[in-house]
Amino acid sequence: MALIEPRTLKGFRDFLPAAMIPREKLMEVARSVYRRYGFVPIDTPALELLEVLTGKGSEETDRQMYHFIDAGGRAVGMRFDLTVPLARFAAQHIHELGTPFKRYQIGSVWRGETPQAGRFREFVQCDFDTIGSTGVVSDIETALVIHELMHSVGVHRFKIRINNRQVLSGLLEQLDLQASSTAVLRALDKIEKVGADQVTKELNVAGLSAAQIDQVLTLAAIQGSTDEVLAKLDTVLQGSEIGQQGVERLRTICSAMTAAGVQEEFYQVDVSIARGLDYYTGVVFETVLGDLPGIGSVCSGGRYDNLAGLYTKQHLPGIGASLGLDRLLAALEQLGLIPKSISSADVFIPLFDANRINDYFQLASIVRKAGWSAEVYPEAKKLGAQLKYADQRGFRIALIAGSQEFDAGEVQIKNLATKVSTTVTWRETPEAFVASLSNMMRLPDLMA
Amino acid sequence: MALIEPRTLKGFRDFLPAAMIPREKLMEVARSVYRRYGFVPIDTPALELLEVLTGKGSEETDRQMYHFIDAGGRAVGMRFDLTVPLARFAAQHIHELGTPFKRYQIGSVWRGETPQAGRFREFVQCDFDTIGSTGVVSDIETALVIHELMHSVGVHRFKIRINNRQVLSGLLEQLDLQASSTAVLRALDKIEKVGADQVTKELNVAGLSAAQIDQVLTLAAIQGSTDEVLAKLDTVLQGSEIGQQGVERLRTICSAMTAAGVQEEFYQVDVSIARGLDYYTGVVFETVLGDLPGIGSVCSGGRYDNLAGLYTKQHLPGIGASLGLDRLLAALEQLGLIPKSISSADVFIPLFDANRINDYFQLASIVRKAGWSAEVYPEAKKLGAQLKYADQRGFRIALIAGSQEFDAGEVQIKNLATKVSTTVTWRETPEAFVASLSNMMRLPDLMA
Repeated sequence: MALIEPRTLKGFRDFLPAAMIPREKLMEVARSVYRRYGFVPIDTPALELLEVLTGKGSEETDRQMYHFIDAGGRAVGMRFDLTVPLARFAAQHIHELGTPFKRYQIGSVWRGETPQAGRFREFVQCDFDTIGSTGVVSDIETALVIHELMHSVGVHRFKIRINNRQVLSGLLEQLDLQASSTAVLRALDKIEKVGADQVTKELNVAGLSAAQIDQVLTLAAIQGSTDEVLAKLDTVLQGSEIGQQGVERLRTICSAMTAAGVQEEFYQVDVSIARGLDYYTGVVFETVLGDLPGIGSVCSGGRYDNLAGLYTKQHLPGIGASLGLDRLLAALEQLGLIPKSISSADVFIPLFDANRINDYFQLASIVRKAGWSAEVYPEAKKLGAQLKYADQRGFRIALIAGSQEFDAGEVQIKNLATKVSTTVTWRETPEAFVASLSNMMRLPDLMA
Repeated sequence: MALIEPRTLKGFRDFLPAAMIPREKLMEVARSVYRRYGFVPIDTPALELLEVLTGKGSEETDRQMYHFIDAGGRAVGMRFDLTVPLARFAAQHIHELGTPFKRYQIGSVWRGETPQAGRFREFVQCDFDTIGSTGVVSDIETALVIHELMHSVGVHRFKIRINNRQVLSGLLEQLDLQASSTAVLRALDKIEKVGADQVTKELNVAGLSAAQIDQVLTLAAIQGSTDEVLAKLDTVLQGSEIGQQGVERLRTICSAMTAAGVQEEFYQVDVSIARGLDYYTGVVFETVLGDLPGIGSVCSGGRYDNLAGLYTKQHLPGIGASLGLDRLLAALEQLGLIPKSISSADVFIPLFDANRINDYFQLASIVRKAGWSAEVYPEAKKLGAQLKYADQRGFRIALIAGSQEFDAGEVQIKNLATKVSTTVTWRETPEAFVASLSNMMRLPDLMA
């Protein structure tokens, strides 16, 4: 029989252990941070009725969606984000769940877009949202979660850029530019990338006067400490009630972040942040890494007025953000923050003598009961080959014993990085053995 | 605009927090046990080329598979298990990974089968495998992982049924019944369900003589302690080399389990276990719950000779098992082993005074830094409504303060189960506050 070529679909990828271990770790960190703030997990199906998914999608997402007719003749699609399923979920279950409802969801989504560098057709989203509250408390909490996410994954140079769409609305109101809001917001959104000259040209084409363009650019250029930026915004927006409200809300958020112990170096009011044009209505967030600003935002989100208007008449305001798992992982790798180890285990036990299997497993069970992970090599190969395997997988400690050591109730503990080793008794004195093992684990790792 | 009805596809389901919290917990437990034995995670795509998936599937799985033509004209399918993707993955990457390769994978799979009670079209599989070793060490380790999985999820009455396909082959050899092996194995597999009379009838139809049927039933009826069962098997199979090898391997496994501290009440050599007819070639496992034997096996697997023969000429023997996540969750719920709490958080902080937001967040940050999770209610509603929310979500502690308490630097700590409360200072003496909070958490929970 001819062999089938083993390959993945274009735009899809396997995760080998070296990639999957940090990926899994990052998801665990995200879950633990979300939980620390009272968010609870939900899950929704990978497949939904097509009518449910296309309801909210733009033409772009509709075109990219994987969809087909199932065996029962139903038009179905694979979810392309977690926001549309959340809206459907909330419309369906919010009566049972009650509000405020704080959920997180981590799951794969699929988009048939043309694969390019760093873009795949299957990727994981990692979202958290608070539904059913318009209060500033949820805005603050969202910012605090983002701040804690970054520190928890080991990134300590980053900035959360915070804006409020109300501030932008206030500006548009003052300049009588509501009709050109799309052009103005788009221009603001890319001013950092393309520069003021290009934005001036575009706003000119959009019909703004020189004076109006000047005011937009003035707003976008506001810089300084949080207090300074907020004071300048107060001045610029003093004629607009919605603008003033927007500034006041930003002030409350920044003040509470300080009260919660967040250093000002980690956030910044930045009026150039718009985050999409239709969806968000209040505060918006982006998070850029100090050492890799070029990769864009690794955690973004904002406040919306009405999550599920396509599915229910119930008004569901909320706020949420999404951790860009793949982008953050790529960044962590580039910054050297991902350890190279591709083993889950601490202790490696080479198999010398296939007649002493019971001794190896008795030894391993003591190690595991003490809280470490342990692996017994499955074949009685030469020690060199076994230790090479242990090296490649990043084990820290080897427990080496053959029939002679077992007869004496002894074992050699070897730190695989420092090469230091010591022989101890274990069978008669398991507590003392565990203490020695613990000491050997603490030896400085010369490779680190 | 007409509303879109918010609903899931037939055979699919949402996981609300009350279902998702224990589900997520169970996956975490499984991961931590797998890691303790040196297994590492991998992931593979949800979508594969159809030719890759159909290569190994039976007609049944082919028929049930979700498959379609993608926008690029490729025939693709959604994975219906994690074993076929593992085979494809191993064929593709084993040169890079080396052997032995010990992986776990937890992921959704999809089958368009007719939904019935407890069966869904989307479910999670939770597999672990050791590839590239034929040694008994991997057999033992697989049994130990299953044993530890059960205890770790809180089940302490269960039995791992162990058999070896070599024992069955030995019996067939002795009875000169190799040609009827399918009928005999199938009969053995269901003897517990349908009884000896029915099995006798079926073996009669399959052409076995009365003497042959008698020997099959004798083998299936062998009972007693592990030593007794193994001794009886020795006697029955003394004329068959493969049968003797099979018994010897079972003896080595059981002996090592004892050495590793596993009590005999948790496992049993059971020659009626066959586990599928084509795939397994060596030791096979099933795990039944002492309190719910009727739900069938919650963790099953076995040894196979050649994992990836469809995709590579490289011979890849291995052994693995799969934790039946959904079945086990249903069992845990039935046994009352799933706590009712639907919150991830420990400490609830009601919002009394919207002017003191900074105080609430300062308080919450102390709680979170001490290692607990905390949630500030997002709206300044009446205390009764806020505490009702806290009750419904199973919070353990409330920290109650308004402007008066904040001015005095105090807060009331209330155990929500016992209703006991105490007022303490917090702002000036955060360490003492954390100690008081810790004491209040330890108060016996009257609801438990």
